[in-house]
Amino acid sequence: MATVEIVMGSKSDFDVALPAINILKEFGVDFGVHVLSAHRTPVEVTELASSAEKNGTKVFIAIAGKAAHLAGFIAANTFLPVIGLPAKSSFMDGMDSLLSTVMMPNGVPVATVAVGGGLNAGLLAIQMLALSDVALKNKLKAYKAKIHDDVIESNKEIKF
Amino acid sequence: MATVEIVMGSKSDFDVALPAINILKEFGVDFGVHVLSAHRTPVEVTELASSAEKNGTKVFIAIAGKAAHLAGFIAANTFLPVIGLPAKSSFMDGMDSLLSTVMMPNGVPVATVAVGGGLNAGLLAIQMLALSDVALKNKLKAYKAKIHDDVIESNKEIKF
Amino acid sequence: MATVEIVMGSKSDFDVALPAINILKEFGVDFGVHVLSAHRTPVEVTELASSAEKNGTKVFIAIAGKAAHLAGFIAANTFLPVIGLPAKSSFMDGMDSLLSTVMMPNGVPVATVAVGGGLNAGLLAIQMLALSDVALKNKLKAYKAKIHDDVIESNKEIKF
Amino acid sequence: MATVEIVMGSKSDFDVALPAINILKEFGVDFGVHVLSAHRTPVEVTELASSAEKNGTKVFIAIAGKAAHLAGFIAANTFLPVIGLPAKSSFMDGMDSLLSTVMMPNGVPVATVAVGGGLNAGLLAIQMLALSDVALKNKLKAYKAKIHDDVIESNKEIKF
Amino acid sequence: MATVEIVMGSKSDFDVALPAINILKEFGVDFGVHVLSAHRTPVEVTELASSAEKNGTKVFIAIAGKAAHLAGFIAANTFLPVIGLPAKSSFMDGMDSLLSTVMMPNGVPVATVAVGGGLNAGLLAIQMLALSDVALKNKLKAYKAKIHDDVIESNKEIKF
Amino acid sequence: MATVEIVMGSKSDFDVALPAINILKEFGVDFGVHVLSAHRTPVEVTELASSAEKNGTKVFIAIAGKAAHLAGFIAANTFLPVIGLPAKSSFMDGMDSLLSTVMMPNGVPVATVAVGGGLNAGLLAIQMLALSDVALKNKLKAYKAKIHDDVIESNKEIKF
Amino acid sequence: MATVEIVMGSKSDFDVALPAINILKEFGVDFGVHVLSAHRTPVEVTELASSAEKNGTKVFIAIAGKAAHLAGFIAANTFLPVIGLPAKSSFMDGMDSLLSTVMMPNGVPVATVAVGGGLNAGLLAIQMLALSDVALKNKLKAYKAKIHDDVIESNKEIKF
Amino acid sequence: MATVEIVMGSKSDFDVALPAINILKEFGVDFGVHVLSAHRTPVEVTELASSAEKNGTKVFIAIAGKAAHLAGFIAANTFLPVIGLPAKSSFMDGMDSLLSTVMMPNGVPVATVAVGGGLNAGLLAIQMLALSDVALKNKLKAYKAKIHDDVIESNKEIKF
Repeated sequence: MATVEIVMGSKSDFDVALPAINILKEFGVDFGVHVLSAHRTPVEVTELASSAEKNGTKVFIAIAGKAAHLAGFIAANTFLPVIGLPAKSSFMDGMDSLLSTVMMPNGVPVATVAVGGGLNAGLLAIQMLALSDVALKNKLKAYKAKIHDDVIESNKEIKF
Repeated sequence: MATVEIVMGSKSDFDVALPAINILKEFGVDFGVHVLSAHRTPVEVTELASSAEKNGTKVFIAIAGKAAHLAGFIAANTFLPVIGLPAKSSFMDGMDSLLSTVMMPNGVPVATVAVGGGLNAGLLAIQMLALSDVALKNKLKAYKAKIHDDVIESNKEIKF
Repeated sequence: MATVEIVMGSKSDFDVALPAINILKEFGVDFGVHVLSAHRTPVEVTELASSAEKNGTKVFIAIAGKAAHLAGFIAANTFLPVIGLPAKSSFMDGMDSLLSTVMMPNGVPVATVAVGGGLNAGLLAIQMLALSDVALKNKLKAYKAKIHDDVIESNKEIKF
Repeated sequence: MATVEIVMGSKSDFDVALPAINILKEFGVDFGVHVLSAHRTPVEVTELASSAEKNGTKVFIAIAGKAAHLAGFIAANTFLPVIGLPAKSSFMDGMDSLLSTVMMPNGVPVATVAVGGGLNAGLLAIQMLALSDVALKNKLKAYKAKIHDDVIESNKEIKF
Repeated sequence: MATVEIVMGSKSDFDVALPAINILKEFGVDFGVHVLSAHRTPVEVTELASSAEKNGTKVFIAIAGKAAHLAGFIAANTFLPVIGLPAKSSFMDGMDSLLSTVMMPNGVPVATVAVGGGLNAGLLAIQMLALSDVALKNKLKAYKAKIHDDVIESNKEIKF
Repeated sequence: MATVEIVMGSKSDFDVALPAINILKEFGVDFGVHVLSAHRTPVEVTELASSAEKNGTKVFIAIAGKAAHLAGFIAANTFLPVIGLPAKSSFMDGMDSLLSTVMMPNGVPVATVAVGGGLNAGLLAIQMLALSDVALKNKLKAYKAKIHDDVIESNKEIKF
Repeated sequence: MATVEIVMGSKSDFDVALPAINILKEFGVDFGVHVLSAHRTPVEVTELASSAEKNGTKVFIAIAGKAAHLAGFIAANTFLPVIGLPAKSSFMDGMDSLLSTVMMPNGVPVATVAVGGGLNAGLLAIQMLALSDVALKNKLKAYKAKIHDDVIESNKEIKF
Repeated sequence: MATVEIVMGSKSDFDVALPAINILKEFGVDFGVHVLSAHRTPVEVTELASSAEKNGTKVFIAIAGKAAHLAGFIAANTFLPVIGLPAKSSFMDGMDSLLSTVMMPNGVPVATVAVGGGLNAGLLAIQMLALSDVALKNKLKAYKAKIHDDVIESNKEIKF
């Protein structure tokens, strides 16, 4: 298994996952990608989550929409940190996905990012890994400088 | 196992469950009551749900609040009908519980009743059982007459 | 009359009803389809609902949007289980339809599925019927296996 | 039957109805009060609504909470104007009641006032009746002057 | 001035007003159409509203979006019934328009119809006028029969 | 007239106005307080707003709840800046008041502060006046230092 | 630095800023435009805000979407008035942007305008400046007359 | 500085912070507690966040309500993971706090937990630290077993 396991509830969530995948690639972090549904393949999700820690996985990113139980269900089966990425649904732009992901009961946290916030889901995983990885820490520092500079560059282009 | 299995995510949901329990008693329907959490005892919920059909259970009533995954998680593990009863939470009076319960993806329905609608959860279970139980059907008919007459009685009491 | 009676409030709800119709066909369940409005044809809805039980109907599926009273109105006139399928409206993606359908008062439950959840409405009807129909039960088991396998298949296709 | 028929879905809505009752009394308008539920006594509601016009009723005020179908159901059975008064429910302060009352489909309007707006429901009925009643018109004029003067009086009391 | 005065807050509300205009035409009701803004032309709105009663106007229909004050502002200046028609805005499909129109304080009711419910706004005006106009009453009866028959016709076309 | 005119829609809004009053006193800014309703005393509100500029008023603070038109109505009648202070209502904690106040159409802005944000309403008025008043500017500087120091003081008290 | 400093959180907010820019141009008010992010360039935002008062800036307009902290962050670093312009986001049409901008804590007000209300943001800045600028005051008077006349013109074009 | 730095926006957030504090104590994790406001003490927050990494801090927990910028502001000034804990506010039970915390723009994630979810905020911090701390990992395993057993115990107590 990979350091970061990305699990999406359906193939149709792939576009939401992509920015997370890309930023992990950019940072050179080892990751796996799975399509597994909390509601249609609960056994497989349980297995993936339960065995993750001993297989060397460090962080999960779970992507789901509507009654989005995937992140919470993975969190129920591991004590590794689970990042919940609510997918924009056809109902109130993902209000259902957001609340289903973030409002977890005591004892089973899900680290929730913005609706559709794939890039930030990946980045948050990297921040966690960087706690014990100096190389990643340095890349994060560089990344933070880069997004700073991009804004400064935009600022220069605006002229009135 | 009982004909109707009532599962609540936490002891604190007992008051929400009570009207369901009472109406099942009133109709003489055999039921069990469990405190089992989708997030803290996923294995036990899986076992209860997976073994229900062969043990003679007909219907589930699942009660949970906040990111309320319990009904959906039971539904993931059985093809028996699952009634979802959203418990009023401390956030927007249960908007999170309602959306987490009702907005289920294709293939795994949850028959959702109103936030805090315990009596209706029990009654819906009885309606399902009455499809193949003439005695229950007659009791439903009598119940419908009774709630009708209660309103008529209230109407008589109002005088201007 | 048919085993499952599907009632939609307006012809324009047909696309919402279609997945329910298709899944009932796929399972070989006998059904009828009606366009009847709680607000424009209350007499006909009353007749359909009141006579359903003695005509052999087992389950209703009611589809409506906006101030969606159809499911509740049918439920007022029968003690058969009524499945409420909120149609996505032009206001907050169906928040009005959902709340009008699910927030029923004590004594008159509506088994509500997700906004636009036609397939699940049909499947829930099948689950209810399968309580006393072994053939349907077996088809549900197979269906559950199929949607499981579809996810596993999707999972295999994703390769990084 | 009375000129204005006030119908509430449950005895517990009486406090919401009271300001409507009081303003009708104050204006000397003839009214009746009923407890009748769209979901528990549909036949009686249908009868009341259907026979109203030939019995001399002019306006309905319907009070209900949650999935508040009462006003719409009365409107389905009469072409008299129906005023919908959403009762504050235990869910989001009556958002369900408001949307269930106001979001009516084409052809069957409900004249909706604010959640808990009993006084305005009564006043709106009076405004409608005053269209063909000069005495009421003059009382409305006086009432408007009085609420104006009450504000002016409050204004005088505030001194800094 | 006309029997029904339709006031819209901006030219861009014309499409929302059109169904109201058409139904009033269809019923042969005399009406006027105005573009007047509560916020940009308060004096003209005040004049229109204040002089309406003595000029023979019976009912107002006010159409506005966003912070929709037009209906309430007209109601502040007349004791004639004012129908509020919330226009769908670019924010939450008109939640702002709806709440700004319907949540009026005691003493100044606005008879609110659904967001975008132009036809019903017109019909509600007709219902009010029909209280003292037998010809309109008969047309309403015929209209109710027609929309009933349209549904029955739709029902016949659906065949499975 | 005073430099800052505080207008509240009803006596019951006084508690919401009080923090605005207190901060204006603390800064030594001249102010008036009025109870005037957009809906019950439109003429008086129009007069107050229309005559303000020539009478030396600089800023309005308008406080209202529910369908809160007061700030917008004052803004319609003056080109002075109008601060809108939404009062918490009994519906969704003031969502109606907030949207009715802030979602103003082009050409007539209302400077809206938080629901119940009386202190900030007063402070915003002071910030506007301070643009041409060095003494006020210095007091603002001191105030900013004080609220900074209060937090630092709180920080010191927390010890673990 | 300019009299009015417009700061947007991202280049993509430019379209939201444009109406503010245009109205400031139309009124001949000196302004600057910046792309600076509270989250990516906090140091630069701090510098801009902290140095504004001594550099002659009078008013800020801050434009941001989603978790829109920009206006509040600028307000934290200056005692000049800050106008918050919530940009429509992909979540609930900007509900997140609106609440993040307007619900500021005591001591640090943000003068919030409607979601996407760029023109009003600019106009509010002008109203503040006009408190001590007679020429601007006269232009505001003319502007108010013009938007009044535009409505009157629209009113004339509507003929039935 | 401590391994986990807890920052709350106001002393009044202490009750929300307490469960986080208690769970960190229970796990023997070194922590600091600060009252620092993004809006009133921006310089101190910047300093705390900017110097954290080199001072040995690993994770931040930021607690704030209303327009809750604290977590995002800390995240703007560090690349350490920041956990956002929305405090329940007086507006819609913390909808403003939740959206202001979770809807962060690309590049600056905040790991958001439920409104009022203090225990989970602490636990999430521990999960992150446990990635490189075997003793903590074992304690998490034991904790997960304990909350499991607590539910099983509750289950035994419920008897019908």
